[in-house]
Amino acid sequence: MLSIGDELTLGQTLDTNSAWISERLLLRGVRVDEHATVDDDTERICGAMDRLSSGHDLLVCTGGLGPTADDLTRVALARVLGVPLVEDAGALAHIESWFTGRGGMPPSNRVQSMRPESARCLENPHGTAPGLAAETERCDIFCLPGPPHEMQPMFRAFVEPALRQEPGRVTRTRIILTFGVGESRIAERLGELMDRDRPERGLPLVGTTASRGVVACRVRHSGSSEAEVVAALDAVEDEINHRLGAAVFDRRDPSAGDSPDVADALPRVVVSMLRDRGERVAVAESCTAGLLGAEITRIAGSSSVFVGGWLTYSNDMKTSMLGVPVSVLEREGAVSGACALAMARGALDRSGADHALSITGIAGPGGGSDEKPVGSVWIGCASGGGGAEARLFRFKGDRDAVRAWAMRTALGLLRLRLAGLDMKLLAEIERVR
Amino acid sequence: MLSIGDELTLGQTLDTNSAWISERLLLRGVRVDEHATVDDDTERICGAMDRLSSGHDLLVCTGGLGPTADDLTRVALARVLGVPLVEDAGALAHIESWFTGRGGMPPSNRVQSMRPESARCLENPHGTAPGLAAETERCDIFCLPGPPHEMQPMFRAFVEPALRQEPGRVTRTRIILTFGVGESRIAERLGELMDRDRPERGLPLVGTTASRGVVACRVRHSGSSEAEVVAALDAVEDEINHRLGAAVFDRRDPSAGDSPDVADALPRVVVSMLRDRGERVAVAESCTAGLLGAEITRIAGSSSVFVGGWLTYSNDMKTSMLGVPVSVLEREGAVSGACALAMARGALDRSGADHALSITGIAGPGGGSDEKPVGSVWIGCASGGGGAEARLFRFKGDRDAVRAWAMRTALGLLRLRLAGLDMKLLAEIERVR
Repeated sequence: MLSIGDELTLGQTLDTNSAWISERLLLRGVRVDEHATVDDDTERICGAMDRLSSGHDLLVCTGGLGPTADDLTRVALARVLGVPLVEDAGALAHIESWFTGRGGMPPSNRVQSMRPESARCLENPHGTAPGLAAETERCDIFCLPGPPHEMQPMFRAFVEPALRQEPGRVTRTRIILTFGVGESRIAERLGELMDRDRPERGLPLVGTTASRGVVACRVRHSGSSEAEVVAALDAVEDEINHRLGAAVFDRRDPSAGDSPDVADALPRVVVSMLRDRGERVAVAESCTAGLLGAEITRIAGSSSVFVGGWLTYSNDMKTSMLGVPVSVLEREGAVSGACALAMARGALDRSGADHALSITGIAGPGGGSDEKPVGSVWIGCASGGGGAEARLFRFKGDRDAVRAWAMRTALGLLRLRLAGLDMKLLAEIERVR
Repeated sequence: MLSIGDELTLGQTLDTNSAWISERLLLRGVRVDEHATVDDDTERICGAMDRLSSGHDLLVCTGGLGPTADDLTRVALARVLGVPLVEDAGALAHIESWFTGRGGMPPSNRVQSMRPESARCLENPHGTAPGLAAETERCDIFCLPGPPHEMQPMFRAFVEPALRQEPGRVTRTRIILTFGVGESRIAERLGELMDRDRPERGLPLVGTTASRGVVACRVRHSGSSEAEVVAALDAVEDEINHRLGAAVFDRRDPSAGDSPDVADALPRVVVSMLRDRGERVAVAESCTAGLLGAEITRIAGSSSVFVGGWLTYSNDMKTSMLGVPVSVLEREGAVSGACALAMARGALDRSGADHALSITGIAGPGGGSDEKPVGSVWIGCASGGGGAEARLFRFKGDRDAVRAWAMRTALGLLRLRLAGLDMKLLAEIERVR
């Protein structure tokens, strides 16, 4: 992959195209080895195109197809192919029609109808920049516009159908999601399943990635038939479930249509479990002050399971809004198990929900003491039938990290409770990437 | 720049480090020519390190420093430098101390204390992976861990102080922050100030970037003396303030020690204005369900200005917790100016705060109607002395975007009110990237 543009190398725009295209390609069994990003410099674009198209079977370029002087992808591709630029009548007609009713085509846009003589133009239904497709002896080259809403439909229409399938070769992936155990301990438990040479031995490759507290185990396998590949993935998934136990909270099978996007997996599972049971939750947040409620309600349809909550940042609010006894605050302080329990019970009683989660802690950077250092967070959970409990965690990291970990851990606790598992599992929580 | 990791080339994780580092380097006058991203393959990492370090003066690598078998940056750097790996006693001690009280260092983490013999380890205060620094004849090479919260402090501590300055040349930047006016309208108002050829004419370069609703105008200038450069920046800043007026809410002068990180600029300014006035705020959130409280309390020390709030997701909670009249909900619905006003007034009365913000709207994807389409959000503001008002916004985008815009706009409204400016300014709000 090659992303082209000053705005990318200068850090002004985040390149989301590379990740999107890589993921789409992987679902088709095409593995991306390298992304390169270069600025709007013809020499550097040519150098990268030349290098990448010599060493790979497929090169997808994005960006640099606009009408201005710093849009150089057309010129660079022509130079790499060793052919002149010519005007494409179809592309010109498309661009002219784009500006119908918009005051006519500005002269600067005419350059967008130029293509290297041996390339063909790819129609862009959402903008003026046509894409380009060309072949070298080894490599299929596609150049697509940079804006994602223009690039993505063109990728689907032109690149995906042209992917060379390795004949008789099927690649599939599986994602197993865990929460509550750090990435290095997950790796220890997976042991030899993570050996890098497994594909050479005909076994599925297992890797882990950690993001927002969720450690994802990603399993990939290639073989000669769908049935053989799926059976091998199933076997590895069973073994991973066996080794990781209650830490596993979700699975994704992208080839069966599951989303590979796992950013909201934890609240999604919690909302889904609540919905299945016809139960509702309320929150009482001190140091997170809304993070937990906001995370649950990221999920569309969460209104059927989320009642609401209280942000009791000050001690006065803890007493007046949730009935936390003044004696608890005076004797044990706001960061205490007794306060977390009283917050959870108060929220449960006042909301009419089936479960209530509470969070009270010291996010820092100030406010810590020897006894209660920064990162100390009590998380409480009270349920209509099941009593109440509170646990102390010590999260590492800065203010943002402590708050995010507290929010996620509260969700993890509720997940365990809803699944009938022991909340002690989360005692293993440590800060992972 | 070189980003390393299967999760990046496979599209499972978005590389935000490259953009962040590029932007930081640009502030110091260092322009990035190329980003490369490679998978966890020793050959490809070595190839990219070799190529990039031969052609450039600085190479910053991120990722691949973890404890598992697919973390290969150490090995690749040693091979490129042509030296063996040795154990670093200081790094080992740091890693061991990291696991104190966490059941001791897992054996797999020991590998993180290995460094190429001619490289030095860089301490990581937020994780187990030390960084690495090395020099070739031409190039300074830094390898930093992939997680942004570990990488960023290490970049500031080790890379920035080591940047080579062009002799006799001073580069300075200035950042002017706006909220409430879209990026294209900002560009229209700035007009010729944004011409790209200004540096060739000896004038400061002005660019805009939009992120999280804040449009930042970034001014950069180089010259032979500090005084000359600062005077030119001051003049452009005055002109920008003149053209953008009340949309400007903050400025940063990174060379005077201001942070160039503007991600939390809006809540930071609001908290600071409240603190200066000795006033406090409460929130009443429906569709955002905690986003606003969480954003205000991102700022350390916000406890002196943030009292707390209510997440009234259900209609019952709006009535029982904030006293919104049932008649208002029945007659005008929960997404109405009357409801937003009642929520803000209820929160003001019950919290004892000086100001209360309320948000009620339709975040989607469901729940919209012709009269109240998805994206319709009422935002209310009530103040002890200054009465109450509510305004209707129609935000574009998906559920996440609508909620985030609602939260930011509420902060923007309070900022205008605290500054004594007309809340109508925000009527210009439109969806920017």
